[in-house]
Amino acid sequence: MGLTARVGVTPGRIRHTVAFTLAHAEGSPDERAFLAAASRLAEIPGVEAFELLAEVSPKNAFRFGISMEFADQDAYESYNAHPDHVRFVEERWLPEVADFLEIDYATR
Amino acid sequence: MGLTARVGVTPGRIRHTVAFTLAHAEGSPDERAFLAAASRLAEIPGVEAFELLAEVSPKNAFRFGISMEFADQDAYESYNAHPDHVRFVEERWLPEVADFLEIDYATR
Repeated sequence: MGLTARVGVTPGRIRHTVAFTLAHAEGSPDERAFLAAASRLAEIPGVEAFELLAEVSPKNAFRFGISMEFADQDAYESYNAHPDHVRFVEERWLPEVADFLEIDYATR
Repeated sequence: MGLTARVGVTPGRIRHTVAFTLAHAEGSPDERAFLAAASRLAEIPGVEAFELLAEVSPKNAFRFGISMEFADQDAYESYNAHPDHVRFVEERWLPEVADFLEIDYATR
């Protein structure tokens, strides 16, 4: 996974992103296990253009990012309500993420 | 400009993003003028996949976003040092932006 080339313009889509840091030590098995679990969010229906990223700016403290796109607001809401997403948030995100910020972009 | 489909995977690239709010009133001529000036950052050499976006998450107060990609760190640094970028930061960004957060992503 990683940065990708982009083509075309598609109004109506939503790009859901979250920058985050983990409670785990850098390079630890716990970190790897979390990132592996996070990458499986890509399998939830409606998730497109999924990317698990490194945050590299010295201007903030976040170390990772997730970016995904949805065709529309309905697809985004279905993802949020999907049992696999709800379970991930409860069992992995809340206990293992130290800080995060969600930023969502749409065409303007 | 807007959200776009993505294809392929390109390690080594950097996606530079900034979420921001303006000092200007929503929908004001000053807001339009700022966004028009910001969109011309796309013309600076090295800037790829430029997007001027609406920030739509209810979980933060940012209203806009800019996303661009660079082939590598050198291209990013050349952009930062380019006179058109330096002038934009001094003449438009610093006086007209009320709050912002830069988040940069790379392949991990």
